[in-house]
Amino acid sequence: MHQLSANGYSVEIGSILESSFAQLVEPYRNSKCFIIVDENTQEYCLEYLLTNFDAIANAEVIVLPEGEENKQLQIVGNVWEVLTEYETTRHDLIINLGGGLISDIGGFIASCYKRGMAFINIPTSLLAMVDASIGGKTGVNLGVYKNQIGLFSNPIGLFIDPIFLGTLPTEELLNGYAEMLKHGLISDGELYSEVLEQMKDPQNVSLELLTKVIDVKRKIVLDDPTEKGPRKKLNFGHTFGHAIEGQQMMHNPIKHGYAVGLGMIIESFVSYKRGLLSEDEFNRIELELGQFYQFPAFSDDDINEMIALLVNDKKNRDGKILTCLLEGIGNCTYDHELTSSEALEVFLHFKGKQVNPN
Amino acid sequence: MHQLSANGYSVEIGSILESSFAQLVEPYRNSKCFIIVDENTQEYCLEYLLTNFDAIANAEVIVLPEGEENKQLQIVGNVWEVLTEYETTRHDLIINLGGGLISDIGGFIASCYKRGMAFINIPTSLLAMVDASIGGKTGVNLGVYKNQIGLFSNPIGLFIDPIFLGTLPTEELLNGYAEMLKHGLISDGELYSEVLEQMKDPQNVSLELLTKVIDVKRKIVLDDPTEKGPRKKLNFGHTFGHAIEGQQMMHNPIKHGYAVGLGMIIESFVSYKRGLLSEDEFNRIELELGQFYQFPAFSDDDINEMIALLVNDKKNRDGKILTCLLEGIGNCTYDHELTSSEALEVFLHFKGKQVNPN
Repeated sequence: MHQLSANGYSVEIGSILESSFAQLVEPYRNSKCFIIVDENTQEYCLEYLLTNFDAIANAEVIVLPEGEENKQLQIVGNVWEVLTEYETTRHDLIINLGGGLISDIGGFIASCYKRGMAFINIPTSLLAMVDASIGGKTGVNLGVYKNQIGLFSNPIGLFIDPIFLGTLPTEELLNGYAEMLKHGLISDGELYSEVLEQMKDPQNVSLELLTKVIDVKRKIVLDDPTEKGPRKKLNFGHTFGHAIEGQQMMHNPIKHGYAVGLGMIIESFVSYKRGLLSEDEFNRIELELGQFYQFPAFSDDDINEMIALLVNDKKNRDGKILTCLLEGIGNCTYDHELTSSEALEVFLHFKGKQVNPN
Repeated sequence: MHQLSANGYSVEIGSILESSFAQLVEPYRNSKCFIIVDENTQEYCLEYLLTNFDAIANAEVIVLPEGEENKQLQIVGNVWEVLTEYETTRHDLIINLGGGLISDIGGFIASCYKRGMAFINIPTSLLAMVDASIGGKTGVNLGVYKNQIGLFSNPIGLFIDPIFLGTLPTEELLNGYAEMLKHGLISDGELYSEVLEQMKDPQNVSLELLTKVIDVKRKIVLDDPTEKGPRKKLNFGHTFGHAIEGQQMMHNPIKHGYAVGLGMIIESFVSYKRGLLSEDEFNRIELELGQFYQFPAFSDDDINEMIALLVNDKKNRDGKILTCLLEGIGNCTYDHELTSSEALEVFLHFKGKQVNPN
């Protein structure tokens, strides 16, 4: 069991059976407990939890529909109505069992219900384990705008058990590896190489590597919980990544990590164009990430939609698009300004590199 | 100008023209600024603000419909969409100009938009000045459940200028006096008497009394910002008050302060019945509050609805109704348990005292 200490709660990496989970839920034995799942985690993960932990064996299960397009206020409102029907108080508990969608939406639901009830995160996807579940960000989309509505709020416990990775398809693992690569690219070139190495055997994620990668995010987040400064580094790949993800959502949804993989290639290209990253390093990143993450086809209209999304990115200030850039592998800086016309140029460059250009 | 220091922001009581408001909004001259108003404050208060403060002269004005029945997620969602259309960032500003509804809903809108943007509260009703705008509670109703959804979040500044009271009808002032009476009843018998005295001349609220009353709440809130303990005292009159208000909302809406006035009479009665409050003190409270706040007619069905609301009160724990009680005028204690059948008895007692019993 690897244990890390976050902002007032602990992160435990290893078998949940050997963790402090049982102890943490014990006080809720006589309160109400809700487990929020999606259809997948309901099928593959829920039973493991219910049969191993007596105190929550009678928990109410709330099943949310899968897919970013369902990460909407309407769903949140429905769950709040369910909690109300069950006469749930602010002293009851919510357990989020699922990927980042579940912890984002479940954390938001818990944090705003009667001004805040406790929640526990048990991420079941690699992406959620290494990224979404740590750092206190909760939220939902507003139309195509990702995580437009939400707040910073921490769980009372975070349990990362690789047992839940066993049933994931490779595509879903690649989704998580994108953020692992990012944690390397922004902080430690050696770690970036280790992640690439692990990707040759993606199913058998090492507990040590997992801990190392989570620790990168944990340290950055502890240092700057509400993203006033250095935490912004974690947004590397996300300025363009969110725009691609948001634009594709309504047409041909792609996974978050996949979009971030593409975003990292684009932002590395901008870094190179500005003379911050060497040509060799950019070529290396484009080649290594390009093995796993390929651009979808996009039209000129798609590009315009992506630029509209960039302009409305949460990270912007004073009407300027802000992005992270690399100053070498392992060194990320933030708050670089970008104009819409630069963004257009960049998209046109990558349009030529699509799998199926149209 | 009276100045009090709250949790990281300052409360200024007196003319806003002499306050630090101009200085506080100056940095937002080149950002976006939104002023949230209702139809009344749009008519009576907005111009005063816009003409006196150059930095916000070009602010966008968002008009919300009046009435508790409009304090709903749907409205919040609409405003979030408007903010998104204006490409608002988390570094822009919202000014809430209105009563408690505006600061509750506007504070919630700001706090969840892109995980939190700054807001300033300028309460324009007596109720909001002495109660709603201080303490960091934000939220909206979920159906008939008052403030079911929300969070604790503080403004960057709170400006209380009695100039805005000038246009208020007496009924609206009585709404605020209920909370002022409450602040006396829970903390200081002398202050309770002073408020009663002031009510003989309700239009000309003394700045000193206003400051004294606000300071009661400010101190309690500073001591216990998230309502783990002593802050619960502020809920005196609110257990039954909220039930009455929620139940009436769909039939014959009554004002919050009015409901709290009735709630205080009921909770004083429970205090007396439990031997915590002397018969003399209860009679005094019933007589003095009864001059201003009279019970609406309610049927047995209405009582059942009110009990259902009591059972779902945010303040409850482990399925028990919790309420504040008085142990003498000026001394309030909290977390007293109450059963549904006790609540029923109490309602039946007061059913006999209605203006128009049915």
